[in-house]
Amino acid sequence: MSYKLFIPGPVEVSPSVYKAMTTPVFGHRSPDFVELYQSVQPRLQQLFFTGDPVYISTSSAWGVMEGALRNLTEKKVLNICSGAFSDKWHDVAKRCGKDAGAIKYDWGTPIDPEDVRRELSTGAYDTVTFIHNETSTGTMNPLAEIMAVVREFPEVISIVDSVSSFSVLKIPKDELGIDVLLTGSQKALALPPGMALFSASPRAHERAEKLADRGYYFDFLEFRKNHEKGMTPSTPVIPLIFGLRAKLEEIFEEGLDARFERHARLNAKVHAWIDRHGLETLPPRAFASKSLSCVKNLHEWDLPAIIAHLKEHYNCAIDAGYGKIKGKTFRISNMGDETDETMETLLRQLDETLAALGYTS
Amino acid sequence: MSYKLFIPGPVEVSPSVYKAMTTPVFGHRSPDFVELYQSVQPRLQQLFFTGDPVYISTSSAWGVMEGALRNLTEKKVLNICSGAFSDKWHDVAKRCGKDAGAIKYDWGTPIDPEDVRRELSTGAYDTVTFIHNETSTGTMNPLAEIMAVVREFPEVISIVDSVSSFSVLKIPKDELGIDVLLTGSQKALALPPGMALFSASPRAHERAEKLADRGYYFDFLEFRKNHEKGMTPSTPVIPLIFGLRAKLEEIFEEGLDARFERHARLNAKVHAWIDRHGLETLPPRAFASKSLSCVKNLHEWDLPAIIAHLKEHYNCAIDAGYGKIKGKTFRISNMGDETDETMETLLRQLDETLAALGYTS
Repeated sequence: MSYKLFIPGPVEVSPSVYKAMTTPVFGHRSPDFVELYQSVQPRLQQLFFTGDPVYISTSSAWGVMEGALRNLTEKKVLNICSGAFSDKWHDVAKRCGKDAGAIKYDWGTPIDPEDVRRELSTGAYDTVTFIHNETSTGTMNPLAEIMAVVREFPEVISIVDSVSSFSVLKIPKDELGIDVLLTGSQKALALPPGMALFSASPRAHERAEKLADRGYYFDFLEFRKNHEKGMTPSTPVIPLIFGLRAKLEEIFEEGLDARFERHARLNAKVHAWIDRHGLETLPPRAFASKSLSCVKNLHEWDLPAIIAHLKEHYNCAIDAGYGKIKGKTFRISNMGDETDETMETLLRQLDETLAALGYTS
Repeated sequence: MSYKLFIPGPVEVSPSVYKAMTTPVFGHRSPDFVELYQSVQPRLQQLFFTGDPVYISTSSAWGVMEGALRNLTEKKVLNICSGAFSDKWHDVAKRCGKDAGAIKYDWGTPIDPEDVRRELSTGAYDTVTFIHNETSTGTMNPLAEIMAVVREFPEVISIVDSVSSFSVLKIPKDELGIDVLLTGSQKALALPPGMALFSASPRAHERAEKLADRGYYFDFLEFRKNHEKGMTPSTPVIPLIFGLRAKLEEIFEEGLDARFERHARLNAKVHAWIDRHGLETLPPRAFASKSLSCVKNLHEWDLPAIIAHLKEHYNCAIDAGYGKIKGKTFRISNMGDETDETMETLLRQLDETLAALGYTS
């Protein structure tokens, strides 16, 4: 009863990754583990475009998103909110007892760097969080422009969620001055869920050294101390690290430029399909995500019926919208290992489904 | 280059579990996930001997050990320290900004319930933590006796780590009045690392409701809220839940009593081997763990040589001691799927190794 996933994560996991995950485990304080850990590090640094260490967290991305606040926010955090996950980050900051301010946008509206400048200019903040690619709204925020503004405020540590954009396009962490860049395993990396990756700058570690309430499980300094020995602070999810190693092999075999180009090309195919049906992306097209398309349900299609038909007849799944825009939008992912052929097949199956349901748009 | 693990976790993972882990993933907000989550719940409750929900945390046990403190310690926590992991729990409590007191024992000394009564009688505490089976010292603390004392103090919430004893013997959570019982995936459950399980009492949830700084990732109330929908608060490590489902099938096929009896029998075989070699367990024999034996290296054997020989000639691994007793002790696990045959084989291989290295004890 398995079916192919074009939802915005988890996405389809390849047989090669599943096979790698069955590699027999060993002790995480053994030389074998150190070898495994160190073997993935150089390529992770290349993918993060960073000279900083890349840490492996046995958690979903939320763990690191919360941990980053505990490690880095001493004075006040600015949460830029423009979708389900960035809105929630603001809530989580408050739940961690942090003083937190917000810039709030309607869902689908991209972040305006001028708003960020105005708010940071108050001098109230020592940290800022935002999501590069809002999975709930399919909005890709103008990362370089936002970071150019953030860099004007050297006391502000930046925490950027790239959960659904990481490895889809180049995110040059060091060049942009991103202090903490984090992602999860189950989006474009096409691994099963259960692991988060993040890289932190020396500035971030210096800030963490000043904070007393970092806790242990997500303590950045524990990550660094163990990283230097080729280990993780706590018992790691070894099967997913084996999966990651296999996936990195494949990513670098394809080549980063080719990978980025492929994602852009497949995304364009979805956009062409959207245009053909007289539809629109939720965000302005210039800010539409390159990894997943959040499409306004302008013709008021019966999305549950479409999804049921796709699953029953074609053994695949798209998504019927998230949170308060469920039903008003639907989402199609082009992340991970998808090819021209698999995306064209999906779009054709969608068309056949629409025809079968009597939609003639 | 895989080798059979008789270290105190991770232990050998069966092909059936690895196979289950390759079941194609799906969205964790889908009906398929709800079905998976709910399918493991009844048997987890049976294994925890509880009517309370059993939560699945995508983390190592440390995440829950830290999270429990953030959820439950309002006034002061008593950490009972008698080994590497219980000592560290005290440190973690302080790192979470909690007021924390400790009862400290030499490693290998079991917890004396009278000490617990004396300390809790001060009225200073609202939470107590201890480890049922200290993995570092192979000491099994007198759980029923300790809990009988803890129950005398109704304002004290108990948090019990059963990482290396869970499913090895009956731990009747509800009957003993344990508020939070937690474990990890990679010990006797013989799953790969990367997942923790815990069950929390209504009292624990009530306490959590009063605490403001629970955060999000390990917030017990989030776990409960999502549990009621058959979900987890954050993206879960789905492959390990598939593995868990398969393992639960096997556990209940064998039967709980038979499983407990098998672990006791295999443990007795290791003890007989210890006696035959004129050796001693680190703790007094009455408190020696039923899941792993921590043996004093009385004859000053060259442990690295023994371990290298075992790995090279017999493709298996035992452990050369943890932390400050590394080298002075070694550890042999009988957790998980081991059988009379596999344990006898290991002990024979150990004897052959000793002979090969010229030890004639």
